[in-house]
Amino acid sequence: MSSYHPFSLEDAIAYAKSIPDFFAADAVLTCEEIGDGNLNLVFRVADPQQNKSLIIKQALPYAKVVGESWPLSLDRARIEREALEIQHRLCPELVPAIYGGDNELAITVMEDLSGYTIMRQGLIDGHTYDHFAEHIGRFIATTLFYTSDLGMNQQDKKLQSARFINPDLCKITEDLIFEDPYRDADNNNFTEDIRPEAEKLWQDNELHLEVALLREKFLTRGEALLHGDLHTGSIFVTSDSTKVIDPEFAYYGPIGFDIGAVIANLLLNFAAQPGWSDNDAILQERRTWLLATIGGVWNHFEHNFRKLWDAHGVDIMSKTPGYQDLYMEKVLQDTIGFAGCKVIRRIVGLSHVADIDTIKNELHRHQAKVTALDIGKQLVKQGRSASSIAEVIEWAAAAAAKEGANV
Amino acid sequence: MSSYHPFSLEDAIAYAKSIPDFFAADAVLTCEEIGDGNLNLVFRVADPQQNKSLIIKQALPYAKVVGESWPLSLDRARIEREALEIQHRLCPELVPAIYGGDNELAITVMEDLSGYTIMRQGLIDGHTYDHFAEHIGRFIATTLFYTSDLGMNQQDKKLQSARFINPDLCKITEDLIFEDPYRDADNNNFTEDIRPEAEKLWQDNELHLEVALLREKFLTRGEALLHGDLHTGSIFVTSDSTKVIDPEFAYYGPIGFDIGAVIANLLLNFAAQPGWSDNDAILQERRTWLLATIGGVWNHFEHNFRKLWDAHGVDIMSKTPGYQDLYMEKVLQDTIGFAGCKVIRRIVGLSHVADIDTIKNELHRHQAKVTALDIGKQLVKQGRSASSIAEVIEWAAAAAAKEGANV
Repeated sequence: MSSYHPFSLEDAIAYAKSIPDFFAADAVLTCEEIGDGNLNLVFRVADPQQNKSLIIKQALPYAKVVGESWPLSLDRARIEREALEIQHRLCPELVPAIYGGDNELAITVMEDLSGYTIMRQGLIDGHTYDHFAEHIGRFIATTLFYTSDLGMNQQDKKLQSARFINPDLCKITEDLIFEDPYRDADNNNFTEDIRPEAEKLWQDNELHLEVALLREKFLTRGEALLHGDLHTGSIFVTSDSTKVIDPEFAYYGPIGFDIGAVIANLLLNFAAQPGWSDNDAILQERRTWLLATIGGVWNHFEHNFRKLWDAHGVDIMSKTPGYQDLYMEKVLQDTIGFAGCKVIRRIVGLSHVADIDTIKNELHRHQAKVTALDIGKQLVKQGRSASSIAEVIEWAAAAAAKEGANV
Repeated sequence: MSSYHPFSLEDAIAYAKSIPDFFAADAVLTCEEIGDGNLNLVFRVADPQQNKSLIIKQALPYAKVVGESWPLSLDRARIEREALEIQHRLCPELVPAIYGGDNELAITVMEDLSGYTIMRQGLIDGHTYDHFAEHIGRFIATTLFYTSDLGMNQQDKKLQSARFINPDLCKITEDLIFEDPYRDADNNNFTEDIRPEAEKLWQDNELHLEVALLREKFLTRGEALLHGDLHTGSIFVTSDSTKVIDPEFAYYGPIGFDIGAVIANLLLNFAAQPGWSDNDAILQERRTWLLATIGGVWNHFEHNFRKLWDAHGVDIMSKTPGYQDLYMEKVLQDTIGFAGCKVIRRIVGLSHVADIDTIKNELHRHQAKVTALDIGKQLVKQGRSASSIAEVIEWAAAAAAKEGANV
C-alpha cells in the first residue's frame, strides 16, 4: 500500500484523465467530492462541455460512524470493485458500469448516476417506485444464483469465495447487527424514550436464541456472493430504473441476508410513515404500497431464482423433486429472520436510518421506533417457522394497527 | 512448482538429513517406500543404529483409484501439513509430530508411527480398542471447536478458512459420496449381485432429497476445519494410543461430517462381521463392542464439545440458554446423515473398504453389503429427524437382525 494516499481533487482529475477512451485529451475537467467522508471519498469528475462524467470512489483506511472511528482494511475497495464487476456482468442494467480501478490506491472508477436518487431519500420524500420490486428481486436472484453452487462450477465457487474473505466488514455486521442490540453494549445508540424497549431486548431469551441461530448462519453459510449491505441507501433509483451500488460488505454468506436487508428497510420506512403525513388516506396508500412492494420483492426473487434453477442449474442432485421447495422455504425463513435483525439494530444499535431519525414530531418518531421494534421482534421470533411472505405483511399491518391515538 | 519431482530413495535420505537436530551427522540411514502409490509416496527413513526414524510423505500430481487416474493439486500437501500442525497443536498426543516440509516439493516430514496399526486392519484382524472412542471423540471435539466460530477469533477463522480452500479434494467427496451412488455413474463400482440394490438407490427419490440436503451442507457450511477423510484407514492405533493422520481433504465444512466418517466406518465393520467368524458368541461380542463404540464416539465428542463451549466459548451470543442444545441436535442429525452417505458409497461407489471386500465367503460378502446398504439408507432417511445416537444403534441392530439364515 506504499502508493496509497487520499486523493485531492487534482489527483482525481489526473486519474480520470488516465482512463482510456473516456474524456477527450483536451477536455477541461471539473471535480467535486460528494461523499459523506465516513468511509470513502467520492469524486465526481466531469467534462461540462461534453456533458460527460464519471465517479471515482476511494476507500479511507478507517470508518467513522456516529463519532466512532476504527481502522478498516483498504482491501475492501478491491472486494467492492470485483463484486461490482461480477454483478454488472450478471445484471448490466441494474449495476453501474466499472471503468477501472487500482488496488493500492483503493479506488474504483465507475458510471456516474447523477440523474438518480438514493432510494431511501426518495421514499422519505414520498415517491413510489413501481418497478423496484421486479428490479431488485431479479438483481438478488440473478447475482446470488450464479455465484452459488446451484449456478456456477462448484470448484470455481470455492476459489471465488477465497477472493471475498472480508473479515473487517463482516465484523461490523456481526457486532452491530447480531450482538450489540441484545446487550448493554457501548456501541448502542438510542434515545432515552426507547431505553425501556432496549432493556426488554436485552432480557428476551427467546429473541436471543433466534438471533444466535441467525448469527451462526451469517458466520458459517457460504451460499452465494452477497451484496452484504443491501439497504435502500445502497440503491439508486429513478421512476423506471434501479442501480445497486456499494457492495463493500460482499462476502460468501446466506442468501436470505440480502433479501432480508431490502425488506427490513422497506419495513423501517413503513414504520416511519405517520411521521410524514397527517393525511390518513396518503398514509394508508403509502403503507399499502410498501407492503405490496415487500411481497413483490420476495415474489420476484423467488420467481426468478426458481426459473434460473430450472433452466441453468449445474448440480444434478439439486434437481431432485422436492429439494427446490425445501430450499426456498429455508431462504424465506432466513430472509424473515435477517430482516427482523436489521430492523431492530436500526432502532437501538449504532447506525440508524433517516426514515425514522428525521421525523420532526417527537411522538411520531417515538411511535415509529416502537412499531419498528414490534415488527422486528416478530420477524426474528417467527421467522424460523414462517411459510409465506404474506405472514410478514400481516405482522407489519398488525403492528401498525396497534399504533396509539397519539399518531 | 519448478523444483517438484517425485523423490527417489536417495532424495528422501538427503532431505531427511537436512532436518535439524534429528539424525546424527554421521548416521548411516536406510530408506524404504511404504506408500500404496495411489496418491502419495511415503518414505520411511531410519537410523537403525540409533533406532530413530521419520516419515517423508510426498504428494503425487495425480490420484489413482481402482484404475482411474486424474490430476490432483500438489497444494494438498501444504493443506495436509498445515492441518496436521493445527491438529497437533490442539491434540499433541493424538496427532503425529511434524518435523518439517516443503510446499514446492509437496512433502511433509513427520513422526514415524511404525509401532502402530492402521485401525481398519486392526478391526479386520479382530482387535478391539477400548480407548478409541474417548480418543477420537476428544480429537474431533477439540480440533473442531477451536477452529470454529465458537472457539476462535471469528475474523482469524475467516482468514484461516481461505488457507484451506481445497477444490480438488472436495470435488472427490462431492462426486464419490454425494452424487455418483445415486445415479448410474461411470465411476460407480459394484459387483453384479448388488446391481438390484444399486438400481434401487438410483430410483429412491426420498433418499435423493436427503442426499441433496447433505450435499448442500458439505458445499456451503464452513463450520470448522474438518479432517475431511476421517475413516479407519486414516487412524493409527495401539491398544492404548490413537493417532490421526492424512488430513489432505481438510477444509472448512460441517462438523457432523468428521464424526459421521468415523461412525460410518465402524458401521461398515459391523456389517462385515459375519464374514469374519463362524462363532456366534464372538460375532455378537464384536458387534456389541462396535455399537458401544459408536455410542461412545458420539458421547465423548458431545461431552468434550459442550465442556469446551462452556469453558472457552468466545461468542457471547452462543451462551444464550437453549442454543447449545439446538446446535448439538443439528450436529447429531448431520452426523447421522453423513454417516449414511459414507456407508452407501463404500458399497456402490468407486472406493470400497477392505472390511467387506476381503470377506472370502461370497454369500457372507453379499450379505454384508446388503446389511450396510440397509443401515446406510436408514441413516440418510432418518437423520434429519433423529434425536439420539441410540437410534443409530437400534437401526444397525435391526438391520443385523434381518440378516438371512445364509449368514
